[in-house]
Amino acid sequence: MKYSYVSNLYCPKCGTRFNTREQHQLCSCGTPLLVDYDLETLQMNLTAEELKSRDDSLWRYHELLPVEDSENVVSMGEGMTPLISLSNLGEEMCMENLFMKDEGLIPTGTFKARGAAVGVSKAKEVGVKELAMPTNGNAGSAWALYSAKAGLKSTVVMPKDAPEITRKEVALSGANLYLVNGLISDAGKIVGKAVKDYNLFDAATLKEPYRIEGKKTMGLEIAEQLKWKLPDVIVYPTGGGVGLIGIYKALKELKKLGWVKGELPRLVAVQSTGCAPIVKAWEEGKTESEFWKDSSTLAFGINVPKALGDFLVLDAIYNTDGCAIAVDDESIIFEQEKLAGLEGSFVCPEGAATFAAIRRLRKQGWIEQNETVVGLNTGSGIKYPQSVKVSPKMLEKGDTI
Amino acid sequence: MKYSYVSNLYCPKCGTRFNTREQHQLCSCGTPLLVDYDLETLQMNLTAEELKSRDDSLWRYHELLPVEDSENVVSMGEGMTPLISLSNLGEEMCMENLFMKDEGLIPTGTFKARGAAVGVSKAKEVGVKELAMPTNGNAGSAWALYSAKAGLKSTVVMPKDAPEITRKEVALSGANLYLVNGLISDAGKIVGKAVKDYNLFDAATLKEPYRIEGKKTMGLEIAEQLKWKLPDVIVYPTGGGVGLIGIYKALKELKKLGWVKGELPRLVAVQSTGCAPIVKAWEEGKTESEFWKDSSTLAFGINVPKALGDFLVLDAIYNTDGCAIAVDDESIIFEQEKLAGLEGSFVCPEGAATFAAIRRLRKQGWIEQNETVVGLNTGSGIKYPQSVKVSPKMLEKGDTI
Repeated sequence: MKYSYVSNLYCPKCGTRFNTREQHQLCSCGTPLLVDYDLETLQMNLTAEELKSRDDSLWRYHELLPVEDSENVVSMGEGMTPLISLSNLGEEMCMENLFMKDEGLIPTGTFKARGAAVGVSKAKEVGVKELAMPTNGNAGSAWALYSAKAGLKSTVVMPKDAPEITRKEVALSGANLYLVNGLISDAGKIVGKAVKDYNLFDAATLKEPYRIEGKKTMGLEIAEQLKWKLPDVIVYPTGGGVGLIGIYKALKELKKLGWVKGELPRLVAVQSTGCAPIVKAWEEGKTESEFWKDSSTLAFGINVPKALGDFLVLDAIYNTDGCAIAVDDESIIFEQEKLAGLEGSFVCPEGAATFAAIRRLRKQGWIEQNETVVGLNTGSGIKYPQSVKVSPKMLEKGDTI
Repeated sequence: MKYSYVSNLYCPKCGTRFNTREQHQLCSCGTPLLVDYDLETLQMNLTAEELKSRDDSLWRYHELLPVEDSENVVSMGEGMTPLISLSNLGEEMCMENLFMKDEGLIPTGTFKARGAAVGVSKAKEVGVKELAMPTNGNAGSAWALYSAKAGLKSTVVMPKDAPEITRKEVALSGANLYLVNGLISDAGKIVGKAVKDYNLFDAATLKEPYRIEGKKTMGLEIAEQLKWKLPDVIVYPTGGGVGLIGIYKALKELKKLGWVKGELPRLVAVQSTGCAPIVKAWEEGKTESEFWKDSSTLAFGINVPKALGDFLVLDAIYNTDGCAIAVDDESIIFEQEKLAGLEGSFVCPEGAATFAAIRRLRKQGWIEQNETVVGLNTGSGIKYPQSVKVSPKMLEKGDTI
């Protein structure tokens, strides 16, 4: 039996198809490429039941991933993160079935490891020797560390304001690290130039087609962990939006395979009021977003003023009767404390934004009491120490409490 | 079928037995209590094969854990952390079968979550309402966060030099947090007094009997992940040593169940040259350690000058023909960089100490080329940003690389 049922790459705008054995970036029309699989044949050769006894990493879904030879898999055990029942927080929000998919429990501490594991493995398979990327921090650390394990060289450019821990991860991996006095869009321009000057593989969001496939596994896992019964709503903090695009792609593939049935979950994109281009586009009924000027939010991972895949995110929302919603920094801080105090989870600000949005959508009645809702926490709060202020009591030796 | 096959608590020194339905701390003779199970009956009712289809958390071993009613389980999906093949580092060290058990991929980012999950669940089961503990940081954050989820109050006292992120985790959980201008032993004295003054449950290392049971699951998982074929050597960074005690206990229970056969692995305790009481005791053939004066190491988690369970650690080493070895801070930093650059893993300093010790033991011939060796990385490097120094190159907008 084949390790992967990948068939080809295709452009979602102009329809051109490409071979998965060669290196590809964007389509010649400038659009991100997507990956297609031979689902008809796979359906005859694999049942959902057979997955049960497999290893608990995202590679359990290798037939639905693009790596064609298992020898090329670069893995640190990523995937099958917990789907945790939040009964205490749910009770407070008057919700009976609230879950958190906790992407803090993955190498490098954020969901970016999924895209990196699959993206780097496939890059290795198609002969990439050196890659470069701009990043808000976490994708850079994931790609740099997976590249190190794969034996690939990497160059990473990030804003100087990106979380400090991520520059340490990149440096420790042995990658070339540059900080830029600007935003991720400025880093992107520098990388774009370097890619041309030095003939590097461009691993920027959606400029290579395989990161989505890694992110997709969040959707596959949610379905399997809920025993192939889809939730009513999935809520995702949206910067570049690749996770949401990937989850949507996963759910459609599962439907084609017949492993899930019925309506797809309503997909919700959460942004910050300080950077909400997709929310604005959705509110105006548009199919693409506009660049958000002077963006600012403490949830650094969703500070993306214009996402290359915005049209795919909006497509996923429209097609599932989902919505887009913005929350402010104050409600993010409030929700982060709620999650720690009620559920023991120290989530990242982006993850807190997810649950701040759920709280609001429930209050508005957009989410109903008995609906099954899965919120994504995209990373561990440990990576964001500055988001918590403490003033502990000081004692001397021999003092008493 | 019963959820747990726990039978009783017993004192490994005087032999007194205690009931597991009541709250217990140390034996009246001052010794840490251990937990016993009815392995004879369990052996008739469960096979190792049946575990395969269970959820991938440490609760898959619930029959071998002390929580008697599943309703009392407080879980955030902890356990079944990856056992990663380190082929690149292994090749460099001339080892064919080197593995890392990565305890960074667990709630709160360190293996302390195992002890907290089981300890807090059992505390809840026996009616504890409020607990207190001294900590070098990570155990405190794990116990505070699990207590929050369980609805228990907690008081945590840690040295002011403990990793800063851990005080933020404790504060965010809503626990009472105190910093002490001293060592964990000073924190311990303050907690000991508070426990008496306010009638709190003392959750200090080994002062409650169930933390070991949580740590034990590392040993159960290693055995299961290696398909019930035990490795030749297990290497563990040793502060309080509860992990090593737990792993040893797990392996003995598995042998009694007949799920594993043959010799137990040689167990290795790794300490820092700046705090090596157990190494000194082992070198002198003693059964207990002496307080290590003016201890100091950057691997803060193993800065424990005198462990309450030292006699149990030494017992485990002697009985398995293991050894104890100290490594210096310089070799820890060296190995941390090696692990990131060759394997993509950003390990904590304690985890780096493990592999520094393995490198040395291999060089000395104590470990042979074809032996299967499992090293424990007890936590994510993300929690220790200060252990990595970087000097990244700065760019302005529009610069080129």
